[in-house]
Amino acid sequence: MSKKYNFSAGPAILPDSVIKASAEAVANWDGTGLSLLEVSHRGAKFVSVLEEAMALTKELLGLPDNYKVLFLTGGASSQFYMTAMNLLDKNGKACYVDTGTWSTKAIKEAKLFGPTEVIASSKEQNFQYVPKGYEVPKDATYLHLTSNNTISGTQMHELPITNTPIVCDMSSDIFSRPIDIERYGLIYAGAQKNMGPAGTTLVIVREDMLGNVDREITSMLDYNTHIKKDSSFNTPPVFPIFVSMLTMRWIKSQGGVAAMAKHNEEKAAIIYNEIDRNSLFKGVAAKEDRSLMNVTFVATKEGIEKDFLAACEAAGCVGLKGHRSVGGFRASIYNAMSIEGVNTLAQVMQDFEKANA
Amino acid sequence: MSKKYNFSAGPAILPDSVIKASAEAVANWDGTGLSLLEVSHRGAKFVSVLEEAMALTKELLGLPDNYKVLFLTGGASSQFYMTAMNLLDKNGKACYVDTGTWSTKAIKEAKLFGPTEVIASSKEQNFQYVPKGYEVPKDATYLHLTSNNTISGTQMHELPITNTPIVCDMSSDIFSRPIDIERYGLIYAGAQKNMGPAGTTLVIVREDMLGNVDREITSMLDYNTHIKKDSSFNTPPVFPIFVSMLTMRWIKSQGGVAAMAKHNEEKAAIIYNEIDRNSLFKGVAAKEDRSLMNVTFVATKEGIEKDFLAACEAAGCVGLKGHRSVGGFRASIYNAMSIEGVNTLAQVMQDFEKANA
Repeated sequence: MSKKYNFSAGPAILPDSVIKASAEAVANWDGTGLSLLEVSHRGAKFVSVLEEAMALTKELLGLPDNYKVLFLTGGASSQFYMTAMNLLDKNGKACYVDTGTWSTKAIKEAKLFGPTEVIASSKEQNFQYVPKGYEVPKDATYLHLTSNNTISGTQMHELPITNTPIVCDMSSDIFSRPIDIERYGLIYAGAQKNMGPAGTTLVIVREDMLGNVDREITSMLDYNTHIKKDSSFNTPPVFPIFVSMLTMRWIKSQGGVAAMAKHNEEKAAIIYNEIDRNSLFKGVAAKEDRSLMNVTFVATKEGIEKDFLAACEAAGCVGLKGHRSVGGFRASIYNAMSIEGVNTLAQVMQDFEKANA
Repeated sequence: MSKKYNFSAGPAILPDSVIKASAEAVANWDGTGLSLLEVSHRGAKFVSVLEEAMALTKELLGLPDNYKVLFLTGGASSQFYMTAMNLLDKNGKACYVDTGTWSTKAIKEAKLFGPTEVIASSKEQNFQYVPKGYEVPKDATYLHLTSNNTISGTQMHELPITNTPIVCDMSSDIFSRPIDIERYGLIYAGAQKNMGPAGTTLVIVREDMLGNVDREITSMLDYNTHIKKDSSFNTPPVFPIFVSMLTMRWIKSQGGVAAMAKHNEEKAAIIYNEIDRNSLFKGVAAKEDRSLMNVTFVATKEGIEKDFLAACEAAGCVGLKGHRSVGGFRASIYNAMSIEGVNTLAQVMQDFEKANA
């Protein structure tokens, strides 16, 4: 069977070496004669996996000691309300920038827990750009941002000027580039884009963000519960955490997040250059806000979509159908996507133009 | 390497065939050239896995159409509060039977959401028996039970006489025996004992239990959200659900839950008979309440614990150390444990008696 290049938006491509090692651990973990799936989460062997996952998160993102790392469940969708439940009450005000489907959902869930204000939005242009130049109210408890928008294919390349702590949904670009950690009060990310399989959610929280709300929180929804118990208050999602740890090891071996950024810029340039050059396609997102993770584009000629997807498939490029709300195509080129993969896709686009222009 | 018999309490033993098929799907799912870990949860192939998992749950437990099946995350620990949040408000009353650590936690979390009453408890005897003969108040909204207690090693072999709908934590004995489904309003179970790896939680809920509370519930915590979206409101934990589905297929292939019950009774008899016969050991739980899933026992002679665990280990029997709150030993003999496994353990006990009595 020929090599497949997986351009799915998420769950998404993982490094080959991570997949191979994960499959081996399911069959027989490090020669223990037991599957990773059937060992105790309190055993020394898994505890060291969890510790390594936390340590690698700190190392890769350069986290100071006052930032805590958690591996929870429930996806970013659970963080939409957990952030507000833990950080916001009737005496505060949460400010949101609405850049797409995911931030819209975050706003909806936060409203149950205290005052919220949408201070900027690109909704009127179907989220095809990232708002800039807005002012963040000085009395804001936090500013919620979505760093990358998988559906429209936009990404925030600069943070707004503000002293307000940022709460950021980094589900689709965590570990893809260095971050200025001091700007953030809380970061969350579902694993299934750039980090691992579906089933765990990374939360990074600065200690002083917690304990400031006038609300009794049930144990499982209180970040402090999980901080105190090192993400093992209850049985953590063992396998998704293990695979995420392996992915972080791989990122480190490749040179860390700075090397990832360089690699991702290189790949994105190949695809965007081809889109801009090719008469059959055009990009969806505003050029200055183009995502390095999710490249969205549409056909300029009617009726060619199906044929183009078939041509991609024939070349081993899969998962390229665009999200139903945008249409066209979407090439998700997360960390684990190779230069070879994007070159293959660019070649398909060129060949397709020759045959159909 | 010799065969290992995994007696861990959870995450726990899974059928060999399930582990093998899971490892293969991680490497290359059904020859698609893609790992199960990197495919879309909205793709037809995974949607059919989720549908099969739901259908097998219904078939194995004989669920009528008014019971809905959900695969969520967050473990039983999340159900401790979600049940109360969705079913209980200030106008209701939740009655609890306290049979161990897990029910105690369920009671603690429920209190935040409405009136609760502990109508029976075996706490005064360290939860070594299951309370019986208590009366369930006629005005109870629901009666919460824990069908099997992994720590003390007790199991409920008969349901109390009541017309009140039962909410039951079946984390450690789901699919181990037939159930009288009409008695239950809601059943929940973390996967990592009898069903799959850590990372998904099965919830079975009777439709009429929902929509009766005076409370606004955030989307992710509202059972109705997940019912409406067939457990795909957000990205479900793909891999843990897949492995659970394979385990259910295996249960069906073995003859279903009635066959499991027979198999489990046979295995439990072997171990309990040896405990009762052997002068070096005695059981922890009251005889009539002994669990068919978690066999707890202690040494009758001082200073032999370490040597016994070493003898077990030498024979390939692992995970037998008792929970810290009970001490001694615990043999968890879930569905996937073979007769050969329990016979091996019984033989170790006999040999150990000969050498140490």
